[in-house]
Amino acid sequence: MSAKAYTEPHRIVYYEADETGQLTVATLIDLFVLVSDDQNIELGMFADMIHGLGVGWVVTQYHLQLTRLPHIGERVTLKTRATSYNRYFAYREYWLLAENGDTLVYGDSIWVTMSYATRKIATIPAELMAPYQSEEVKRLPRLPRPQRLDTTKTQVTKPYRVRYFDIDNNGHVNNAHYFDWLFDTLSADFLRTHRPVDVQIRFENEVQYGHEVISAAVQADATTTQHQIKVGSTIAAIATVSWQAR
Amino acid sequence: MSAKAYTEPHRIVYYEADETGQLTVATLIDLFVLVSDDQNIELGMFADMIHGLGVGWVVTQYHLQLTRLPHIGERVTLKTRATSYNRYFAYREYWLLAENGDTLVYGDSIWVTMSYATRKIATIPAELMAPYQSEEVKRLPRLPRPQRLDTTKTQVTKPYRVRYFDIDNNGHVNNAHYFDWLFDTLSADFLRTHRPVDVQIRFENEVQYGHEVISAAVQADATTTQHQIKVGSTIAAIATVSWQAR
Repeated sequence: MSAKAYTEPHRIVYYEADETGQLTVATLIDLFVLVSDDQNIELGMFADMIHGLGVGWVVTQYHLQLTRLPHIGERVTLKTRATSYNRYFAYREYWLLAENGDTLVYGDSIWVTMSYATRKIATIPAELMAPYQSEEVKRLPRLPRPQRLDTTKTQVTKPYRVRYFDIDNNGHVNNAHYFDWLFDTLSADFLRTHRPVDVQIRFENEVQYGHEVISAAVQADATTTQHQIKVGSTIAAIATVSWQAR
Repeated sequence: MSAKAYTEPHRIVYYEADETGQLTVATLIDLFVLVSDDQNIELGMFADMIHGLGVGWVVTQYHLQLTRLPHIGERVTLKTRATSYNRYFAYREYWLLAENGDTLVYGDSIWVTMSYATRKIATIPAELMAPYQSEEVKRLPRLPRPQRLDTTKTQVTKPYRVRYFDIDNNGHVNNAHYFDWLFDTLSADFLRTHRPVDVQIRFENEVQYGHEVISAAVQADATTTQHQIKVGSTIAAIATVSWQAR
């Protein structure tokens, strides 16, 4: 029995797009989390029920493969599936589909459950997975691990203070904001003339309201950038992004 | 003949809300501009047609009266009407309606057309107003003018760098971001325990990518805050906000 898929329609609007009129990666992540949330609700897994099991879902890795980002006015379909899981990790897939059914973005991700009591990773409660018909497996697909920053290359760094409105209704920094911090270190010129085709990100430690994060970027080669977000000496996230000239 | 109203449905989702689960004022402004844009398109006033007249619409003032901000999952209706105009100014109204039809937020606003050639305010082209059945009047309603900062009171200031992703498809800073800068200067404690009931904002000068803006706030009394956004010595915007304990 394979995992249940869930889809919903969405129209791309101006405030979800950047200067070039294309959907931002930050909003893409917002939309992917939205379609998972909506699947949770459809299957009766309301936020307070999950909370009632003493845990919360936390994403540790995303891998996005982007054929093209949709533009303002485009009607797309968001699709997700909680494909498989083991004792500690759940594997979830995402699709952003064009009106004609073409896959514009494929994303996969690894999630863990964090115990509210211990703030540590907990065994995934069986009740949490049951409604998704997710397959219990020994070994999950491995997502590519972002590269560490190449320290022989020039780093560009910019500081960002975590703002009140970066915090979501769960009391955590909405992960989508990491992408604004990551990409904003690159020059406007580079961002105007390139589009991301592959994004690998790994979240290592939580950032909190009031923290100052330092976002560092290295141009590894003409079409690859490496990124790191730190709070003090602690790495909060690392990412590797492949780009193509527009 | 009164001006044509335009409405569209919207569902409030998690990334449009703050920690308390309520719609942010920044996203409220995004939604109000969205419903105007959608009315423009319905009436055949596409962005490139407006651009073809050598002008662009620029908002100079908003006045928002908030009964309550909707929460995540709530289904609302966005409504707008280009009510009236004179030679230089257009008056537009907005409503955010609850599912039962109650007005949650009423907003009115003043817009001007800016000439691309001179970067100055231009006479509003008649072709631009025709489709809205907007009433041509001598005198437009006057929106309350936000107070200047009370310099006898303590100012809290925070700096914000204008980021690449603050720029919209028109090449300008999306005005909604001003509200993040305005409100983020207030303490998380204050924001968690108060909700805005009246927001008056006046935009005086444009801010641009790479600018560092300084957002200053003064607690004028227990339920009123005064705000100012500056780039160097130039005032970009001033605002007065009335709050109620939640």
